[in-house]
Amino acid sequence: MIRGNMLIAQSGGPSMVINQSLVGAVLAARDAPEIGKIYGSRHGIKGILEEHLVNLRQQSRKVLEAVAATPSSALGSVRRKPTPEDCATIFRVLRARDVRYFFYIGGNDSAETVHIIDEEARRARYDIACFHIPKTIDNDLCENDHTPGFGSAARFVALAIMGDTLDNRALGGVKIDVIMGRHAGFLTAASALARVYPDDGPHLIYLPERPFVIDRFAADVRRVMQTVGRCVVAVSEGISGPDGKPIISSFITETDSHGNAQLSGTGALGDLLTTVVKKQAGVSRVRADTFGYLQRSFPGVISPTDALEARLVGATAVRVAIEGTVSSGSVAIKRKPGKKYAVTFEVVPLRAVARKTRHMPAAFINRAGNDVTAAFLDYVRPLVGTLPPVGRLRGC
Amino acid sequence: MIRGNMLIAQSGGPSMVINQSLVGAVLAARDAPEIGKIYGSRHGIKGILEEHLVNLRQQSRKVLEAVAATPSSALGSVRRKPTPEDCATIFRVLRARDVRYFFYIGGNDSAETVHIIDEEARRARYDIACFHIPKTIDNDLCENDHTPGFGSAARFVALAIMGDTLDNRALGGVKIDVIMGRHAGFLTAASALARVYPDDGPHLIYLPERPFVIDRFAADVRRVMQTVGRCVVAVSEGISGPDGKPIISSFITETDSHGNAQLSGTGALGDLLTTVVKKQAGVSRVRADTFGYLQRSFPGVISPTDALEARLVGATAVRVAIEGTVSSGSVAIKRKPGKKYAVTFEVVPLRAVARKTRHMPAAFINRAGNDVTAAFLDYVRPLVGTLPPVGRLRGC
Repeated sequence: MIRGNMLIAQSGGPSMVINQSLVGAVLAARDAPEIGKIYGSRHGIKGILEEHLVNLRQQSRKVLEAVAATPSSALGSVRRKPTPEDCATIFRVLRARDVRYFFYIGGNDSAETVHIIDEEARRARYDIACFHIPKTIDNDLCENDHTPGFGSAARFVALAIMGDTLDNRALGGVKIDVIMGRHAGFLTAASALARVYPDDGPHLIYLPERPFVIDRFAADVRRVMQTVGRCVVAVSEGISGPDGKPIISSFITETDSHGNAQLSGTGALGDLLTTVVKKQAGVSRVRADTFGYLQRSFPGVISPTDALEARLVGATAVRVAIEGTVSSGSVAIKRKPGKKYAVTFEVVPLRAVARKTRHMPAAFINRAGNDVTAAFLDYVRPLVGTLPPVGRLRGC
Repeated sequence: MIRGNMLIAQSGGPSMVINQSLVGAVLAARDAPEIGKIYGSRHGIKGILEEHLVNLRQQSRKVLEAVAATPSSALGSVRRKPTPEDCATIFRVLRARDVRYFFYIGGNDSAETVHIIDEEARRARYDIACFHIPKTIDNDLCENDHTPGFGSAARFVALAIMGDTLDNRALGGVKIDVIMGRHAGFLTAASALARVYPDDGPHLIYLPERPFVIDRFAADVRRVMQTVGRCVVAVSEGISGPDGKPIISSFITETDSHGNAQLSGTGALGDLLTTVVKKQAGVSRVRADTFGYLQRSFPGVISPTDALEARLVGATAVRVAIEGTVSSGSVAIKRKPGKKYAVTFEVVPLRAVARKTRHMPAAFINRAGNDVTAAFLDYVRPLVGTLPPVGRLRGC
């Protein structure tokens, strides 16, 4: 157990519940006699480097609760991997403020940042507890059953596809929806929750975990058009060809300092697939939408389970850090065995999460590689919550 | 007052509340002794031509209420302008079933369809009441203060931009959001409701009602980047250059039988504007999203006022038709003068609505043509309903 001040920050892509984790950590810290000042760093480690810090002890409970319910990183975010020189500056700034607790909310890149800072701190003989608080809508953190942010983003995707399959039913043709997920298909797979009636879409689901073969895709669409008479396709932005290269890669020019290519914020993949369907499947009415940033920021579409768990991982990180059994780690969500949904939180080593990507297990993907299994639906349903009913006229 | 059977159908782009109008009409008809059978035609006039009709009197109240709360045309939709030959077939089918009441829910193209059928029926000496029930998320019907479907779509847009300006605040750069609206900018303009704090986006709003000049757009973005440090742009899919040609027209190949170009279901405009900002405004992080079909079909984001009014226009059409003062027309929503929001419903001639497009009044657009006015916000706020609060940390 150390006494000292604390700093917390947010990093990577925002989510709808990332502020729940922030507020969970801040409220837990405010109750802890071991912790003095609570600094919030603006835009991740950038705020430490530029000494752009805010006082989180002086925020009213009302403000904190309003922030918790608001999507997107309230402290601002950043995509930046610290260099050894960055770490030296970071330690100078933190030492000057007697910061002994460091919390960083983010995905596997953010876990890598915490891992680097933790290792550099040991080297610099700076006694600081370094904890990663999980967040990612992609649901791709190793060691976790699922991650905070995923459930709400999956809820958005499920609702969007529910609406879209109704829209497609009204006007027909092929509709292609491009969904976020660079290497992991969980979010795209969650579109399967939209199915209420046997002919509901998505009729085809393509994930980054299986090679995407253009000709096979065109044949799949033709088959669905013949059997259902219309077709809704859910496709991950990260789908890759048999050569392992992302289909969209010919359009990509940007990467961040963690080496990630920018796949979102463009309609290019949807437009490419539209052309394929028009030419190779001979369908005239083909539309594509790319759900884009709405998936991680849309207000009011929040899974209650996701919001609660996001708050608890924040609070757990602070409690574990104060306990001091380990001086660094990442809080992971584990699902309890049994029929009733329940989770526990465990601390895992940073290196088990940092940079690594979890993929959809094979048991969650059908043999043809164009749909999910019942096992996946059992897995994802409690994370997303109850969806609204869909009415249908008799005889329609 | 005529006694006979009734037929109702839905046409054009679906909306989130188009089934409220259907159910409003059906419930009113079920209470009316003048009306016998209630046919629903599948996919607009196509269902009449192909005699694909369903019985709407035998649907349970529970089913009807579930359908009312479900987005997208429950009877299916169509984009088809009837030819004289179509009309002859339609009258043969309707006469055989003694249909004396015809209701068609849709936008200005659907009103044109009703107008054609009404005029052809007179010529054919077929005594049938022909009424158009308004629907369009674009809000571009003449004679109407606003149209059913707009308030809910505008709510989706406002929420999406609320989330997006929070996302943009976290990670910076320029975000371009392409919003539906072929000729009228109402839906794009509704993005202004997303502003809660003075630095909130959208920072720039471009509408089809004002010429879109690429160089001026790039200069606007540069200015916002200098003053705010980031920029969210709301742009209508229908923006046109000073030559009057849609900016996106170079990408368009499809039109429907009413002569409308297909502008939605592609990310091309967003990607084009992204390139402009990168090259001409010198911004490196630029993303574009095209909201697409989610705007008209997303479940659970419904304006209560919109849902209620959608139901009432349906019921009003049936009551007016039974009254028989006029044998054809379109139900229009008029706003009562005064501070408190209230509306009345009036019947206007079909020719006043058919094919015509209402645009944003000049008083709703700022002088520079890149934002809306306070008068527009006063106009739109009651249609969209209360939006969720946005929390912000002190010092952030």
